[in-house]
Amino acid sequence: MPEVAARRRSFWGWGYEDERPSDEEVEQAGAGAREHLGFAPAEVERPVRLEDLELPAPRLEPPASLSEICSSDAYERAAHAYGKAYRDVVRAFHGRFDHLPDVVAHPGGEGELERVLDWCAEAGAAAIPFGGGTSVVGGVEPRVPQDAAVTVDLRRMNRVLEVDPVSRAARIQAGATGPQLEEQLGQHELTLRHYPQSFELSTLGGWIATRAGGHFATLQTHIDDFVESVRAITPSGVWESRRLPGSGAGPSPDRLLIGSEGILGVITEAWVRVQERPRFKLSAGVAFASFEKGAGAVRALAQSGLHPANCRLLDPGEAALTGADQDGKALLVLSFESPDHEVEALMARGEELCRDHGGEVRRRGGGEGAWREAFLRAPYLRDTLVAAGILAETFESAITWDRFGDFVTQVRERTLAAIGGEGRLTCRVTHAYPDGAAPYFTVLAPASRGSEVEQWDEIKAAASEAIAAAGGTITHHHAVGRDHRPWYDRQRPDPFAEALRGAKAAVDPSAILNPGVLLDP
Amino acid sequence: MPEVAARRRSFWGWGYEDERPSDEEVEQAGAGAREHLGFAPAEVERPVRLEDLELPAPRLEPPASLSEICSSDAYERAAHAYGKAYRDVVRAFHGRFDHLPDVVAHPGGEGELERVLDWCAEAGAAAIPFGGGTSVVGGVEPRVPQDAAVTVDLRRMNRVLEVDPVSRAARIQAGATGPQLEEQLGQHELTLRHYPQSFELSTLGGWIATRAGGHFATLQTHIDDFVESVRAITPSGVWESRRLPGSGAGPSPDRLLIGSEGILGVITEAWVRVQERPRFKLSAGVAFASFEKGAGAVRALAQSGLHPANCRLLDPGEAALTGADQDGKALLVLSFESPDHEVEALMARGEELCRDHGGEVRRRGGGEGAWREAFLRAPYLRDTLVAAGILAETFESAITWDRFGDFVTQVRERTLAAIGGEGRLTCRVTHAYPDGAAPYFTVLAPASRGSEVEQWDEIKAAASEAIAAAGGTITHHHAVGRDHRPWYDRQRPDPFAEALRGAKAAVDPSAILNPGVLLDP
Repeated sequence: MPEVAARRRSFWGWGYEDERPSDEEVEQAGAGAREHLGFAPAEVERPVRLEDLELPAPRLEPPASLSEICSSDAYERAAHAYGKAYRDVVRAFHGRFDHLPDVVAHPGGEGELERVLDWCAEAGAAAIPFGGGTSVVGGVEPRVPQDAAVTVDLRRMNRVLEVDPVSRAARIQAGATGPQLEEQLGQHELTLRHYPQSFELSTLGGWIATRAGGHFATLQTHIDDFVESVRAITPSGVWESRRLPGSGAGPSPDRLLIGSEGILGVITEAWVRVQERPRFKLSAGVAFASFEKGAGAVRALAQSGLHPANCRLLDPGEAALTGADQDGKALLVLSFESPDHEVEALMARGEELCRDHGGEVRRRGGGEGAWREAFLRAPYLRDTLVAAGILAETFESAITWDRFGDFVTQVRERTLAAIGGEGRLTCRVTHAYPDGAAPYFTVLAPASRGSEVEQWDEIKAAASEAIAAAGGTITHHHAVGRDHRPWYDRQRPDPFAEALRGAKAAVDPSAILNPGVLLDP
Repeated sequence: MPEVAARRRSFWGWGYEDERPSDEEVEQAGAGAREHLGFAPAEVERPVRLEDLELPAPRLEPPASLSEICSSDAYERAAHAYGKAYRDVVRAFHGRFDHLPDVVAHPGGEGELERVLDWCAEAGAAAIPFGGGTSVVGGVEPRVPQDAAVTVDLRRMNRVLEVDPVSRAARIQAGATGPQLEEQLGQHELTLRHYPQSFELSTLGGWIATRAGGHFATLQTHIDDFVESVRAITPSGVWESRRLPGSGAGPSPDRLLIGSEGILGVITEAWVRVQERPRFKLSAGVAFASFEKGAGAVRALAQSGLHPANCRLLDPGEAALTGADQDGKALLVLSFESPDHEVEALMARGEELCRDHGGEVRRRGGGEGAWREAFLRAPYLRDTLVAAGILAETFESAITWDRFGDFVTQVRERTLAAIGGEGRLTCRVTHAYPDGAAPYFTVLAPASRGSEVEQWDEIKAAASEAIAAAGGTITHHHAVGRDHRPWYDRQRPDPFAEALRGAKAAVDPSAILNPGVLLDP
């Protein structure tokens, strides 16, 4: 198999093997939980060792013509068995692999990819597209009806192929991770500025397939808004839209691929809108007596047309946890940025709107580097927490402003009841729209050792039921995958489900592409 | 049949019967053409009279249960036979009706609409959704393979049903015209601010079905950007998305209906994002030595993040025709608006960018009322021109900035060659994106009396071929309908066509909905 990376990623947790949490870190995490969260974690455990895994034999062997780019070794299969949800990490941590790919293919280009898909169709195997493998919704887990599964890892396709500085657009291969594409765009003094929390490992193709949420709290909230055209390989041929900014010709072909989560085709590249790096930046922290007060300010900001780059509201619990504030207030991180013009007037009006809603502007600076750094390091912390015996997971939604307050209250109450005991639930608003906002919840609780998955699944079901009952979406940017299906199926219009089924049958007649995601296989 | 309007619309041209062009106006238009356009129109003619029409008998009769809301009289059939393209108006003007609906149904609600669709499916008749009937692409012409066609006019469903002032959203019936919905929203001090040129007659449902372009040159360029959720009646049931701002759950159900042009379902209502009326407005006219220079400024503005409300660039010919400028310069109409904050700093930076590109700021004012007034009156003028013997039609596209200059040059050259003689072609930019822009072309030429349709079809084919060859889209906001099919089919990704066909078959198994639009029937 071709060499794809100098450092090897952990087969069970986040990131790279050389960044595993040390015993000391795990111990400190436990102490920190006792001190700051007010509960005692479960006992510390260590992750299973790769050499101790006993995996069932693969049920499929690649043809000789593909053997060069395929692997069935234990590391590859284990590392591609799950995404990075808590329920994924905790299962892999303990060496529990409910579903494994039989083969992991690493195509280096579209030709190899097409041959892999052809082989899957002939062999009756499921084909599971895999970008950074950071799904938190079971999107890459080979929980499929087929007798065998081939995971198609796109990481070798990681180049920025073309840059159009006039149109501010770039053609980028789907397997490029955040740092890889930013590094290559940086050579042209350009940036995409899409920073999901998974930025370090997740890929452009994965972002498009799952409608990932990124850096900006308003306007370009999802990768959707940066996509100019998409190219995908389907079993029925190449699905490639043309670069047509603002085309109004029929339903958008791109908008059907965006969010299709691998069931219609494997995204191989896309033209995306890029931009100059911001030269003007201002950031402020604004304290509010309550989350509700802060939400009023976020609504005013979202309806003002000021388009803040960041407009992230932390509830008092979350503000305290991030070390940002300790005095029981909600905290709004508000920032404006531009590559073109001063943002002072925008910030001044933004602060005025905050004050109108009782906000107290506390700090003002040139950026929000520390916050972003901590945000992007969070997935590593989760590995440590799993080892330390702490359940740590998030879920999110979006809701119109008229229901926002009741929504957060009801979801909080019903989820806390399911968490039970001393567990914690905090909330922040990550993205804001004129007509609503996206609340994002974090659960921290002592893990039930031995039944961590069941423990989480119960909490998650309660939270999801509360979200559905209160009128929210099952996901603002975490996608549907396999785990969100029961609630997604309920919120999706029935004729749209029929239409999507019809669309899939037309382009994937053998039904090999990511079965079980979005639709029943 | 229920009374639906106090004034009756013209069966052949734009607007209402009581606003028909007078003999004097027609004569003046001819004189104006000689003076300002430099060519002599064809001879003046008068439109056919309704009582002189000899229409074939309807091939279908509604069941007694629907007879109350159905009509097959000559006026109704003629008035629903065409949209309002030049080729439509000129045919109706001469009393040439290539395809007629056999029955026009006027459902007053979803129950009646469902019964109409059921009847069509049973009778094997095509069902053609009809909003304002202002399609310029053959979207409502009953050019169908079925033996009979029923046009479903939605104008009775014209109410704003609900206003949510907190989320700034309103639930509006699909048959509401621009003035109707604005009048009702105005009672709540709110506005949609979507002003296509057809604003007076076209409807919310039509806008959504065709991805209409509106008021704003940046950000919310299409109705797409205002849609919060959509409700449609399909033969397989109600397709209704929930109000979920920013939901990232799978491919957007709304984005498949938006632009579906009546082939998947009949849109009956939608929640749309509304806003407060702008309190702060600034507008400027900026002259440029050439269209190319002006386009450079538009690109800079679109990439600046200033988000001007209007950023409309007229080439010298168009600037002269609108009376805006007469000195051979291109003219940019630049405006900013906000309900929340002063826009002086934005305008100052916008003007600075214009000057960087050689622009000369000439006028500055508080709005652009005169321009909008003239813009919305243009369709009436077209009726006059048809009578005066002048071909008057428009076409439009969108293209990335890297190809913009060559695109406009090539389309201009090839279209002018097809126009021939002394005909005129002008161009403006209507909408601008960071990665491209939407050029809009106007053709004015002496009509070839007796072969007006063939004359236009030749010009249109040449223009469309030029657009396709130069890499543009066949439509930025005029939709596809039946007339754009050859070029749309070429630009659409093949697997997407298959997917769309599969989707349609799933929700419209009898294939009764607007056959021939977007897909082969």
